[in-house]
Amino acid sequence: MLNFDFYNPTRIIFGSNTVKRINDLIPLDAKVLVLYGGESAHKNGTLTEVRDALGTRTVEEFGGIEPNPSYETLMKAVEMIREKGLDFLLAVGGGSVIDGTKFVAAAVGYEGDPWEILEKRGSKIRHALPFGSVLTLPATGSEMNNGGVVTKKATQTKLPFSSSHVFPVFSILDPTKTYTLPVRQLANGVVDAFIHVMEQYLTYPANARVQDRFAEGLLQTLIEIGPLVLDETQDYDTRANLMWTASMALNGLIGAGVPQDWSTHMIGHELTALHNIDHARTLAIVLPANMQVRRTTKRDKLLQYAERVWNITEGNDEQRIDAAIEQTRQFFEGLGLPTRLSDYQLGAKDIDQIVNQLEVHGLTKLGEHGDVTLAVSRSILEASL
Amino acid sequence: MLNFDFYNPTRIIFGSNTVKRINDLIPLDAKVLVLYGGESAHKNGTLTEVRDALGTRTVEEFGGIEPNPSYETLMKAVEMIREKGLDFLLAVGGGSVIDGTKFVAAAVGYEGDPWEILEKRGSKIRHALPFGSVLTLPATGSEMNNGGVVTKKATQTKLPFSSSHVFPVFSILDPTKTYTLPVRQLANGVVDAFIHVMEQYLTYPANARVQDRFAEGLLQTLIEIGPLVLDETQDYDTRANLMWTASMALNGLIGAGVPQDWSTHMIGHELTALHNIDHARTLAIVLPANMQVRRTTKRDKLLQYAERVWNITEGNDEQRIDAAIEQTRQFFEGLGLPTRLSDYQLGAKDIDQIVNQLEVHGLTKLGEHGDVTLAVSRSILEASL
Repeated sequence: MLNFDFYNPTRIIFGSNTVKRINDLIPLDAKVLVLYGGESAHKNGTLTEVRDALGTRTVEEFGGIEPNPSYETLMKAVEMIREKGLDFLLAVGGGSVIDGTKFVAAAVGYEGDPWEILEKRGSKIRHALPFGSVLTLPATGSEMNNGGVVTKKATQTKLPFSSSHVFPVFSILDPTKTYTLPVRQLANGVVDAFIHVMEQYLTYPANARVQDRFAEGLLQTLIEIGPLVLDETQDYDTRANLMWTASMALNGLIGAGVPQDWSTHMIGHELTALHNIDHARTLAIVLPANMQVRRTTKRDKLLQYAERVWNITEGNDEQRIDAAIEQTRQFFEGLGLPTRLSDYQLGAKDIDQIVNQLEVHGLTKLGEHGDVTLAVSRSILEASL
Repeated sequence: MLNFDFYNPTRIIFGSNTVKRINDLIPLDAKVLVLYGGESAHKNGTLTEVRDALGTRTVEEFGGIEPNPSYETLMKAVEMIREKGLDFLLAVGGGSVIDGTKFVAAAVGYEGDPWEILEKRGSKIRHALPFGSVLTLPATGSEMNNGGVVTKKATQTKLPFSSSHVFPVFSILDPTKTYTLPVRQLANGVVDAFIHVMEQYLTYPANARVQDRFAEGLLQTLIEIGPLVLDETQDYDTRANLMWTASMALNGLIGAGVPQDWSTHMIGHELTALHNIDHARTLAIVLPANMQVRRTTKRDKLLQYAERVWNITEGNDEQRIDAAIEQTRQFFEGLGLPTRLSDYQLGAKDIDQIVNQLEVHGLTKLGEHGDVTLAVSRSILEASL
């Protein structure tokens, strides 16, 4: 097991009818900015519930945070907070709104150009406004971690950041809030959580038995509930399991003490920035190809994954690895996520540009061994055609 | 899944050579009381390491905290802190020292008779001194939770308490610190962690898939490493896995959103208080009998446990449950923990007194359904003869 430093102070209030608990969790004299995405937060009544729970506190709203939150939009929220002297943020939405809120929380008092927060990956953040979240879309885990991803539209640059100052103080996880979600977003959420786990699991053995078993438990759960989430709309326990699995998939726990990959995400980010493909859908394209191209360095974990997650025990090593990759691909396809660049009308001619963006962003040594060079990323993209 | 409120702000610094990190984690102007148990903390060098890490800070020491920390001893630490104006506590030891430190942290500024902390199970704690821990004995999970157990010697009363104010600020988990432990304490630690998981897992199904799988992963890990811990002395990864498993077994995570039992612990506490049997050893006696007596209400989970944890798939339901109970008993016995009252020269004649103490302590409706009456506790004790 590798040495680690684990810290996660976010309080999780989980269950139906819990939005009202906001009232106990935000100071009575707070001046609150509620941040959200599209009009669905208004339409489905969650924003009204939130306002009711906030009672007599000063409350302002900032809507319009995009699915891949943009620096340009978020800086408008920063200006609003400075102008109105607000001091507590409340994100109402999914990972994009919460990621964006983290950036805003750090940017308000940032000394220097806030874009530096992204360029320096959060390392220069010294303080941030306190914030909570009401999660409406289980997927990214942002509700229980200290990371975010923000895109600068002007340059098509999508960059991650993290800091111990941007853990949500609390997050409200009410599974009934997912009832009005379109199937596409639910399916994306299942795959996003699945691949978060894979980035922290499918590397090389580190004799971290608990982390491995927790990761495998999350993957097995997603495999079980994925189809249920799509079929049994509004089944409380299915949604609850999805919500908690997605939070656990990226809250630091299964990644503590183990090597991590994240090359699938880094390549995927470029696909979103260049071609506006949903985040989870980029991952569904890149991961199977990544497993295929790097099957030698990932061999031991691929075999463990095949056996423990998919119960694949027949055939020789190579056959079992093939079968595991195929099962993974079929799982994503079964949820409605295509796994080929060609499904998005992208071809060999588009690969140069993607690889070029990786280079521009300095992503030339990715993966758990730092051996995913631009040439390897190119091979992965070619294998995903 | 049941609704839940999960919060665990303890920072974990995990790995070899991490004691020195104390220096980053305790304020430079803190006046520190280092609390510990027996002389082993001096002899194995850990206390010297701790003092070195504390540098020029004001440091006092309080040793002699017993394996089942007593109210009487702990109140002497409270007096010392008040006299010398100390303001930060550092527990160096296992669960007993950390539990005791939690009590001391809460008792120093407690308004009223500190015994009330136990009588009210911690509910009246309004603040506590900040404290950290250096864990030397993996077992109880106290290093990453907000609970403790304290015994009043005068009345042979052993009571638990908990409060959100007594989470350790940090805990240092250095697996090499377990190298000098006697085999008996390691074996106790494995069984203690195992039964912590069982109290939160072996109840009734709540469709909490992640919690179930995490619990099963911890149990499987303990089953794998239990024998290794005893054989391969000083194997780093084995000790690391034990340490992290024991912390995960009782840090609130696997118990969030599921029913919990804890009757084995409550009955076990009386055995320790009356007959001075090691905590884990009392649990090894009570659990198999508890599973046997309550096999009907725990049926679904017993069958799940049999299949997923022990891979028992042959035979009818009753046979699989029998086999699972027998495997559990053999696991404890294999680690050197007897599973019968008679192994401790206790017999039918001693049961009245134990049941009487349960009644005195108001423990008349235990378990996940509150249906473990004194009569059921008696049956469990009879089944453990």
